[in-house]
Amino acid sequence: MSQNTIVRFVKRPQGFVDESSFAIEPALMPQAADGQILLRNFYHSLDPYMRPRMTEMDSYIAPFDVGQIMEGGGIGVVVESRHPDYKPGDVVRGMLQWAEYQTAMPGGFMRKLESSGAAWKDYLGVLGSASLTAYVGLTLIGQPKAGETLYVSAASGAVGSIAAQIGKIMGCRVVGSAGTDDKIAWLRDELGLDAAFNYRTVASMDTALAAHCPEGIDIDFENVGGETLQSVLDRIRPHGRIIMCGAISEYNTAGPGLKRIFRIVSHKVRMQGFIVSEHFDMMPAFSAAMTGWLKNGKIKYRETVIEGIENMPKALVGLFRGENFGKLLVKVGPEPN
Amino acid sequence: MSQNTIVRFVKRPQGFVDESSFAIEPALMPQAADGQILLRNFYHSLDPYMRPRMTEMDSYIAPFDVGQIMEGGGIGVVVESRHPDYKPGDVVRGMLQWAEYQTAMPGGFMRKLESSGAAWKDYLGVLGSASLTAYVGLTLIGQPKAGETLYVSAASGAVGSIAAQIGKIMGCRVVGSAGTDDKIAWLRDELGLDAAFNYRTVASMDTALAAHCPEGIDIDFENVGGETLQSVLDRIRPHGRIIMCGAISEYNTAGPGLKRIFRIVSHKVRMQGFIVSEHFDMMPAFSAAMTGWLKNGKIKYRETVIEGIENMPKALVGLFRGENFGKLLVKVGPEPN
Repeated sequence: MSQNTIVRFVKRPQGFVDESSFAIEPALMPQAADGQILLRNFYHSLDPYMRPRMTEMDSYIAPFDVGQIMEGGGIGVVVESRHPDYKPGDVVRGMLQWAEYQTAMPGGFMRKLESSGAAWKDYLGVLGSASLTAYVGLTLIGQPKAGETLYVSAASGAVGSIAAQIGKIMGCRVVGSAGTDDKIAWLRDELGLDAAFNYRTVASMDTALAAHCPEGIDIDFENVGGETLQSVLDRIRPHGRIIMCGAISEYNTAGPGLKRIFRIVSHKVRMQGFIVSEHFDMMPAFSAAMTGWLKNGKIKYRETVIEGIENMPKALVGLFRGENFGKLLVKVGPEPN
Repeated sequence: MSQNTIVRFVKRPQGFVDESSFAIEPALMPQAADGQILLRNFYHSLDPYMRPRMTEMDSYIAPFDVGQIMEGGGIGVVVESRHPDYKPGDVVRGMLQWAEYQTAMPGGFMRKLESSGAAWKDYLGVLGSASLTAYVGLTLIGQPKAGETLYVSAASGAVGSIAAQIGKIMGCRVVGSAGTDDKIAWLRDELGLDAAFNYRTVASMDTALAAHCPEGIDIDFENVGGETLQSVLDRIRPHGRIIMCGAISEYNTAGPGLKRIFRIVSHKVRMQGFIVSEHFDMMPAFSAAMTGWLKNGKIKYRETVIEGIENMPKALVGLFRGENFGKLLVKVGPEPN
């Protein structure tokens, strides 16, 4: 009788990802070796960066191997410990397997998580890596000045919604786009963005950005790439900054390619990529700032919590189709007492 | 009887520029108004950035108006002065008209030039803006570290050849490309680049860069854009820097567009444009460094000097076709005694 369930990555997708890239399997309970801990995972985070890991590309993180157990940011509780610094009941956050139970060697990105009073899921959500990504990208790369125009693509997403609100806190005029009218209403009416538009229903990105950013764009928090990035580049202002956080439009299809690159020269643009894992040293500063902003009501957030490990493939596919709203989490087991 | 010759910009080019965009005309001797000087120009600089100015694009510098007298970096001697700080015989460097004689209001980029012993033409050439462009781009944007691989496209050009040699001085492994075998021989044998290849005769940019930069590219001094930039992006190393100095391949044709932009994210790349005129404050530091390098034989340069204002349109067209070698200057009149 199996006591564990895992999700394997079984096929590299061609174009759009569907559930056939994954297999949900029963498995035996793993046994902790010396120096290891046995974890019962209870929350998992689903994120856009998982798509490029499904491709055999040279990237900052090794591609998923076909046949391996999927992994991603998660939170688990120690069930059994053969590591001197961990005891049953300790909660850890790190790169965890898509598994109900797993063994792990703590260290690296895997750390004990001490709750400061927030709900456990918030440590993967509004206090987690996606929000840190927004904070690092905007402050370190974007360096916003009050009065500048910030455009955020995928503005209702886990990263975009936080980037947009930090932009408001820093005095920017913030314009966002998303793919449904209820997301747009939320951006405008609840998050207080200066303008927001539904990229699926506007005549074109060009006309939408021309209407909502009539004086051009100083800072672009880029999550999408493709046509979106082209429209941004075509109206970036002198000394503009393009924060390259993601390019979700490229993950599934090749796209048309970015033209009129000369504008990077003529407008003295800085287009810069970053990976949040190189900036985990900013986590304490970020946590302190975010905790304050949450307390003052300056940052609001939405999340979608899916229940059950067996729903993870479907939820991830939905993420790439823009079906979720805010941060996407999966509850794979009960929270510890 | 005319006493002056001027060159007008008479037609915006579609695609490649030809001489029909220019008209060589006799003109009357201009008269200096109060506060003005009358200049006899004797050297002019021809540069790639002139191509985008022929297009009606939003750029860092206003496009040429159809019908205006062409202008560019030049050196002239004061013939008559109605300005208190200038006297006949003074030499000035600045944005000058493509004219044998012109009037001007000194100030802005137009300054008196005191020779420190170099030939006058060197102040437009190896000690001029193109070399300053190389210096600013490489040091300020590129921030090279010893041992890094620097790739310079258009490496035999006025900017590229200096960028490549400053890269060598800073301890980089330097790889360059150019469009004729004699340029390649010069880069390798005289400038001492670690590798150089003829982009017109290699099987592809991809195979050439793979062969000559087997471990990837840390810094790209980008003058070309298009396919060249694509190949660079595809093998840029983590934390790579793409110094966006120009995109000559885009000036005449639209090109295919830059794909696989996600690599900017995954490899944490900084791609940054700049315009030398914002960094003229670095001229003294640059002049001092360059004078020393020239004295020690660490920097070598080539130039092509065309004679006669009537040959300027043809020479500029040749520049866009890669026909010149090194800095392209035009001698429009005799040097002052």
